[in-house]
Amino acid sequence: MDFKVNSKQLEKLLTKIIPAVPTRTPMTILENFLLEIKSGLLTIYATDMEISLKSSINIVSEKDIKIVVPARMLYETVRSFKDTSIDFTISENKKLILKTSTGEYSFSYIDAKEFPEIPSFPQQENDVDINEFNISGNDLKDAFELTAFAMSKEEMRPAMTGTLISFNEEGIRFVATDGHRLVNMLKTGHQTNINEQYIVPERAITVLLKILDDKEVKVFVNKTHISFVLSDIELISRLIGQKYPDYQSVIPVENEFALKINTKDLLSSIKRMMIFSPSNSRRVKFSINANLVEISAEDVDSGSAGKESIICEYSGDQIDIGFNSSYVSDVLSHLNYEEVYFKLHSSTKAVIINPDKNKENENLMMLLMPVRLNN
Amino acid sequence: MDFKVNSKQLEKLLTKIIPAVPTRTPMTILENFLLEIKSGLLTIYATDMEISLKSSINIVSEKDIKIVVPARMLYETVRSFKDTSIDFTISENKKLILKTSTGEYSFSYIDAKEFPEIPSFPQQENDVDINEFNISGNDLKDAFELTAFAMSKEEMRPAMTGTLISFNEEGIRFVATDGHRLVNMLKTGHQTNINEQYIVPERAITVLLKILDDKEVKVFVNKTHISFVLSDIELISRLIGQKYPDYQSVIPVENEFALKINTKDLLSSIKRMMIFSPSNSRRVKFSINANLVEISAEDVDSGSAGKESIICEYSGDQIDIGFNSSYVSDVLSHLNYEEVYFKLHSSTKAVIINPDKNKENENLMMLLMPVRLNN
Repeated sequence: MDFKVNSKQLEKLLTKIIPAVPTRTPMTILENFLLEIKSGLLTIYATDMEISLKSSINIVSEKDIKIVVPARMLYETVRSFKDTSIDFTISENKKLILKTSTGEYSFSYIDAKEFPEIPSFPQQENDVDINEFNISGNDLKDAFELTAFAMSKEEMRPAMTGTLISFNEEGIRFVATDGHRLVNMLKTGHQTNINEQYIVPERAITVLLKILDDKEVKVFVNKTHISFVLSDIELISRLIGQKYPDYQSVIPVENEFALKINTKDLLSSIKRMMIFSPSNSRRVKFSINANLVEISAEDVDSGSAGKESIICEYSGDQIDIGFNSSYVSDVLSHLNYEEVYFKLHSSTKAVIINPDKNKENENLMMLLMPVRLNN
Repeated sequence: MDFKVNSKQLEKLLTKIIPAVPTRTPMTILENFLLEIKSGLLTIYATDMEISLKSSINIVSEKDIKIVVPARMLYETVRSFKDTSIDFTISENKKLILKTSTGEYSFSYIDAKEFPEIPSFPQQENDVDINEFNISGNDLKDAFELTAFAMSKEEMRPAMTGTLISFNEEGIRFVATDGHRLVNMLKTGHQTNINEQYIVPERAITVLLKILDDKEVKVFVNKTHISFVLSDIELISRLIGQKYPDYQSVIPVENEFALKINTKDLLSSIKRMMIFSPSNSRRVKFSINANLVEISAEDVDSGSAGKESIICEYSGDQIDIGFNSSYVSDVLSHLNYEEVYFKLHSSTKAVIINPDKNKENENLMMLLMPVRLNN
């Protein structure tokens, strides 16, 4: 026997790392964990070449070991055990053997040198390009949850498939847009001396949202990679090496008409209108008057239509404006505030959506492009 | 306004009927409800031409109405309402209009005569072919849950894609098999004077399992159709008009070796062995000795293997026998008993699996075909 681990402790470790293992990849080596034992520390790595995860536990081992083992098989096996002690042996014939009191399980392993190199921070000593900052896990989670839905799914413009993290003296700004809607959120209260911006890819954000807790996160970032060091796991991701579009130029400055409305009432109405909106345009119409918004949708193909009235406060000229109902629903679902403002200028100009009052240390703005009404 | 219904009451009604609406069908008319009002009774029907569902509520209406309305749209709309009163109007221009205090929704409807005819019981008066019996909803649910997993998914032999219900003086027998495994369950304590057998299709069983409760079910059956009348809904299904295979001839009579084993222990071992069994054969090997079964699996392609020992009671000759691990898992998952018996004769003969003790009014037997071991 080379080392011994408790099944539940190992399961916890593998559960953290498995999200980085790709489910379908032409590079089958990536369907493995890199398992390393060095000076009594068992470290498990996984990567899909875009992101990598790494986590460790202390064990007792006389040997240093570095092998590549089938990730899902090992994970499923360990996960199926009750709370028990597992004896691990690395055998001569390239087998990793697990023994419990009732069974024995063996896996073929591959030499560690076959596994792709995983970036690390600092990549070399005196790496002057590295910036670092700290942020609470909750703040980071909030920021990514609020912005992630607006990222583009179209590979044609890679920059927009990620979320922009931009640093300046105000704080840390998170921006995501697909050209139809935009989220722009400033976290103040974070003093950094960084004056850069980075684009974090969607996959890193998806995995981060699974593993973030309320503890402090240490972030390292250079020109090509970003590393999130959580209390018990580290995620390293490639950055999207593209220029982010000039989002500030699409934010209108003089949207003089303000509509104040109850978020839940509007969202529930929009969800109902999605039943009636045409499946291609998903168009919903807002007819905004001083005290009442009429929300309506019509699908000529199925001959169905719906309209509802919601009370509101509105200061501007009567206006009819169309939106994609899915996008309105997305925006409202992410606005956890009792009331929101829609700030408008005309039926063809971008609309700004704000919460009625910002949370502490947070400045949130969403933007929605209208769609043409055909009347 | 033609009639008025409470939204939650209507939602409950539609929720019961929606399972019969097919999701993809070339006959688009089936994506509708047939909505009928007659003498103050609102009845909703849906069918996919194999099964039909029907349920009613009392309403106040001066008119008799019979129209065909888009099922999912109406259901989604009603479901999205809070508890509210809905006014229904059938307008001149073939629109069904719903009004609530805050909104108005309209759907195009189609003439009722476009909707396919739905069978009913009795189909004509003095229909001498009809048999009927009563069974508790729980018993019927148990019986179908226990047998349904063993039905064949292969359309080549239509009879085996359903569950056989066979009546004789012993009681009601439920049988399902796909040629690899078989479930044979007798419910005693039901006196009927029926001496027939019927094959109920999979879709009827799947939908029944969703709607059955603990109340008494009245069952009507003739040569072509079966009707299950629950307290608040009726399901009518076509029967599979084929001869059921002679399942009795495959049940061995002299399986003299009995293995008694803890069901949960064996199931948890089998599930682990599924990780190691080859993806094509899913083969798992049982090596059975007097006090110990060794369960093992090996996948040569991935170079992985597992074996475990479980204590047992066994009276026969040492035997090695192979099974499809998925089938063993299916069988054991449906045996809600602390211990089970495997009754064997040789490594090539069908194995009988029984609970250690039958429930009252129930006689349950499962059968599993072994797979060849290649050694």
